Amino acid sequence: MLVNDSHLTTIWVDETDQEIKIIDQRLLPHELSIVTLSTVKDVEFAIREMQVRGAPLIGVTAAFGMYVAALEDSSIEFLNKAADFLIESRPTAVNLSWAIKKIKLEISNIDQQNRAEHIFNIAKKIREEDISACSKIGDYGFELIKNVYDKKNSTVNILTHCNAGWLAAVDWGTALAPIFKAKKNKIPIHVWVDETRPRNQGFNLTAWELINENIDCSLIVDNVGGHLMQHDQVDMCIVGTDRTALSGDVCNKIGTYLKALAAYDNNVPFYVSAPISSIDFNIRDGISEIPIEKRDPKEVSSIWGVDKNKNIKTISIVPEKSKSINYAFDVTPSKYISKLITEKGVVDANEISIKGLKD
Amino acid sequence: MLVNDSHLTTIWVDETDQEIKIIDQRLLPHELSIVTLSTVKDVEFAIREMQVRGAPLIGVTAAFGMYVAALEDSSIEFLNKAADFLIESRPTAVNLSWAIKKIKLEISNIDQQNRAEHIFNIAKKIREEDISACSKIGDYGFELIKNVYDKKNSTVNILTHCNAGWLAAVDWGTALAPIFKAKKNKIPIHVWVDETRPRNQGFNLTAWELINENIDCSLIVDNVGGHLMQHDQVDMCIVGTDRTALSGDVCNKIGTYLKALAAYDNNVPFYVSAPISSIDFNIRDGISEIPIEKRDPKEVSSIWGVDKNKNIKTISIVPEKSKSINYAFDVTPSKYISKLITEKGVVDANEISIKGLKD
Repeated sequence: MLVNDSHLTTIWVDETDQEIKIIDQRLLPHELSIVTLSTVKDVEFAIREMQVRGAPLIGVTAAFGMYVAALEDSSIEFLNKAADFLIESRPTAVNLSWAIKKIKLEISNIDQQNRAEHIFNIAKKIREEDISACSKIGDYGFELIKNVYDKKNSTVNILTHCNAGWLAAVDWGTALAPIFKAKKNKIPIHVWVDETRPRNQGFNLTAWELINENIDCSLIVDNVGGHLMQHDQVDMCIVGTDRTALSGDVCNKIGTYLKALAAYDNNVPFYVSAPISSIDFNIRDGISEIPIEKRDPKEVSSIWGVDKNKNIKTISIVPEKSKSINYAFDVTPSKYISKLITEKGVVDANEISIKGLKD
Repeated sequence: MLVNDSHLTTIWVDETDQEIKIIDQRLLPHELSIVTLSTVKDVEFAIREMQVRGAPLIGVTAAFGMYVAALEDSSIEFLNKAADFLIESRPTAVNLSWAIKKIKLEISNIDQQNRAEHIFNIAKKIREEDISACSKIGDYGFELIKNVYDKKNSTVNILTHCNAGWLAAVDWGTALAPIFKAKKNKIPIHVWVDETRPRNQGFNLTAWELINENIDCSLIVDNVGGHLMQHDQVDMCIVGTDRTALSGDVCNKIGTYLKALAAYDNNVPFYVSAPISSIDFNIRDGISEIPIEKRDPKEVSSIWGVDKNKNIKTISIVPEKSKSINYAFDVTPSKYISKLITEKGVVDANEISIKGLKD
């Protein structure tokens, strides 16, 4: 999508030197920094420290991680170690292990001297498939927005939580893809952007994406969505998912569940853009079975931004001697989800519909 | 309550010079600064800029505001103007207009030369009554905590939103009063403290109060409460109220509604500590009738804290060219409220019970 009017994706192979490049998303929206991933350690760091984040992008990055691992040492032993190392970097998103398992399976019969190139091709294919899946999610989700617009004939107000825009994928994104498609189709849109504490991906990433695409948006703290829905200021919610259970339960950024409850209480449709790669066909009950990542308490107790001179600063926002706890995700039970938007169409959040997506 | 092991209240008459003193709560938890209120402008500033905040404290401060106004000019004309000026400083909390109306009524037959002293006595009485009401709320709420402890026989986990501790009143507080009483009665307590963006009263004030009283607490972002309730980590919620409707609907800090929904969804009792001064007997439907204050968007787009050297810094946390919107309160419908804790006992959140509190 657009950044300063130029097209950019989150991860790509540099045409000149064939190196893997990413945007270091930790510095957005204040700095646009491009980083090269040369070793499996670089890739593990990028995922764990959230230079890249968002379930689809984590999967694509892990795939390229297996490629750079194979450049280092293409023995099966080393690649298995690299796979384990990468899988441990973030526990919740299923795309990470999905991409790595796919590569392990596909290289099992490939000669060592061809492995790196083979993995490279798989990684590039996963990247292309992600772009294609997100674009299709955008097309299907666009129809939902268009339906509201056709009835309402005025600006469609959409609330989203965290960032499931193109920065969470390669291009288009998942939750924001329908919004980008609506914009291209000239439907007037206004987006309520949840801050998404503690890491503020809403303000830092979603707002930055929308502003770069010239889409009207208002930034709100995470506490506001319920009030807006009570007062008919939200026509629909669209969020992403880090792991989708067979039951239709969805694990997404912490706080998603609270917005789903408010949507349900106020008859606001609550949509989850769920690429099929986010589905964990081995898990039925989201709440009891999906591991929830607990992250560094410092993400809660301190916050970063820019001072008057645009210098990046980190400050502490808690009293001395306090302790903070940092859960990164929560699970929204399927009963609160109106529909899942997938690259194969808009489906119900239940086992029958989700199983139907498998083939 | 205790600050660095000394007893302190939020507003008091200095024994030496008879001046009105408050804690400037904007600097907590990083600085404890005491301010003198000498003019009605000082008082209006203190309320509007939130040197003092919390519905009960706003009421008490407004009462002393009428006293300092009378010291400036004790004519009815000037006092009426002062009353209007003060009422406009914060629109949502009912205690503000309640205190001022009470004073206007009580001075209507008082000679001009005695008015200041008369108002002074009323203000001091309102202050004492607030302390007494909060202490009684603490006693009644303590019984609810004790009931949980008697069944569970291990630490009682309580979630609270914003600050309805002693800093929101004069002493004891409303939502935190039962917790302080439980601590004094040696019941093991652990409090989940919501950050409460945008102004972070949870981290800045509630956590600071609890740490000073040596009560175990964990700081969490506003998104986390639902996840904790899904996983049985919350035994009860207790929050305050800025305005309570006859129906039992409660207007409190933005985000309260979302926590009430999560409590309801997970069968966690959701209590509101509601001093009778918070009840607006003229309002039935909270959602349609209570005006919701919209505050400066800068409270959303920037945040303050301390740098490594403990210097207070404010930073921007939004992209350039973004717009923020700042609603300060929301309304929790009575159906999500288990009970109201008042100074006259624990009652149902409905019109019959609330009317019964009037006499």
